[in-house]
Amino acid sequence: MISVVILGAGNVATHFFKGFEKAKDISVIQWYNRSLAAIKPYANAVEITDDISALKAADVYILAVSDDVIAEVSHQIPFDDKLVVHTSGSVSVYDLDKKHKRGVLYPLQSLSKNSDVDFANVPICIETIDKKSYPVLKHLARSLGSPTKRINSDQRRVLHLAAVFVNNFTNQLYRIGHEITEHEGAEFDLLKPLILETAKKVQEMSPYKAQTGPAKRNDKKTIKKHLKLLENEQHKAIYKLLTESIIQTHGRKKL
Amino acid sequence: MISVVILGAGNVATHFFKGFEKAKDISVIQWYNRSLAAIKPYANAVEITDDISALKAADVYILAVSDDVIAEVSHQIPFDDKLVVHTSGSVSVYDLDKKHKRGVLYPLQSLSKNSDVDFANVPICIETIDKKSYPVLKHLARSLGSPTKRINSDQRRVLHLAAVFVNNFTNQLYRIGHEITEHEGAEFDLLKPLILETAKKVQEMSPYKAQTGPAKRNDKKTIKKHLKLLENEQHKAIYKLLTESIIQTHGRKKL
Repeated sequence: MISVVILGAGNVATHFFKGFEKAKDISVIQWYNRSLAAIKPYANAVEITDDISALKAADVYILAVSDDVIAEVSHQIPFDDKLVVHTSGSVSVYDLDKKHKRGVLYPLQSLSKNSDVDFANVPICIETIDKKSYPVLKHLARSLGSPTKRINSDQRRVLHLAAVFVNNFTNQLYRIGHEITEHEGAEFDLLKPLILETAKKVQEMSPYKAQTGPAKRNDKKTIKKHLKLLENEQHKAIYKLLTESIIQTHGRKKL
Repeated sequence: MISVVILGAGNVATHFFKGFEKAKDISVIQWYNRSLAAIKPYANAVEITDDISALKAADVYILAVSDDVIAEVSHQIPFDDKLVVHTSGSVSVYDLDKKHKRGVLYPLQSLSKNSDVDFANVPICIETIDKKSYPVLKHLARSLGSPTKRINSDQRRVLHLAAVFVNNFTNQLYRIGHEITEHEGAEFDLLKPLILETAKKVQEMSPYKAQTGPAKRNDKKTIKKHLKLLENEQHKAIYKLLTESIIQTHGRKKL
């Protein structure tokens, strides 16, 4: 049995709590948040507190708090030499107070607070400084049902960066698709099957192989038509830059 | 029973042929391509020809040929006043020879030649010049199992443009995610569940509501870290431009 204290009340904290509740050999013995209101709904299921000096002794402390307060909160944990991990993609493991054994449990997924999570679709990237902490964190992640991967800090940083490209930036391209269709009275809904198919395709095939379209074909006529059609200067700049990027990736050798 | 002649041998021609073969009340009576080799595998199922002057009389001629030759091939069809449609997102319906009744059947999906297509996920956008042709084309599309939508030329043009954003450009963002992870020895595979989740999210929720991440939060610290991490100047420019675009979409009012 691994005993866990969760700190924070955001999406990751909430889904980790719910996931551990279902796991057989994990016990969440306490849930801390600086404001009790957010975790009060769980008061019947777990001891809650807003007093960090009242934290109980546990095997693992999971800091699912904002990046900015990870260092400070880890410092306030009133124990030494405990295994303390954060869940951030971009904060160094060394930002955690060095009085602890330190690690990271980084769930590589977009977790919405109000929808259920299937942890089978949430790879958890694990980083530890000492070797002995690794199997403990792997056990925690596996008990949620997540696939796990041991990574180092550099790899975590680029995964977080790549996640911005494939999630936030991709979503902004959907948003632009929404803007330009609705502007003309066409339905964004018509694009939804294509959006899903594009994401499904790269589950099996590399994005390189999956590419199609006017930029890949270097179809200057269609590219010109599209640029003429775009009224928003920023959309035009995005069209140009991503077209150039595709041409560079797939470009034929220059004559 | 609607009789159809298919012209061309690409992905759209092939999937339309296979789809119509399964439909009850559609009969593909002939398949034309300028080279017989590509359609020879279907010679037992349909009459094939490479001689456009030998085309049979049919209710509908579907030109699933390259954009560049639509006008010319439509001119060569040795009949007048037949219903002739092309399948392109970006070519005007008026590019078809005016001796015909003219229309468009534009499948809004990425069709790969070697994988099966479920037409339930392929919305077909229909455009006609005369009113009487519309129900015929709708019947054709429905018999494939596709959802249909009547649109005009302007709407088709922006849908094709938006498809480039949500399909080709999105796929290029996946490609960049692939490049930057593999460069650091991290696995692109770890990003695949996130890619799928991002696409699934906007099936139910607007891309505006679905947005998360450092750009939306205007988290300058993380944005700075990311820009420092990117070595490729083009990736850096894409990061900057899409971050600006998200900030503009979600920006708080200026003080």
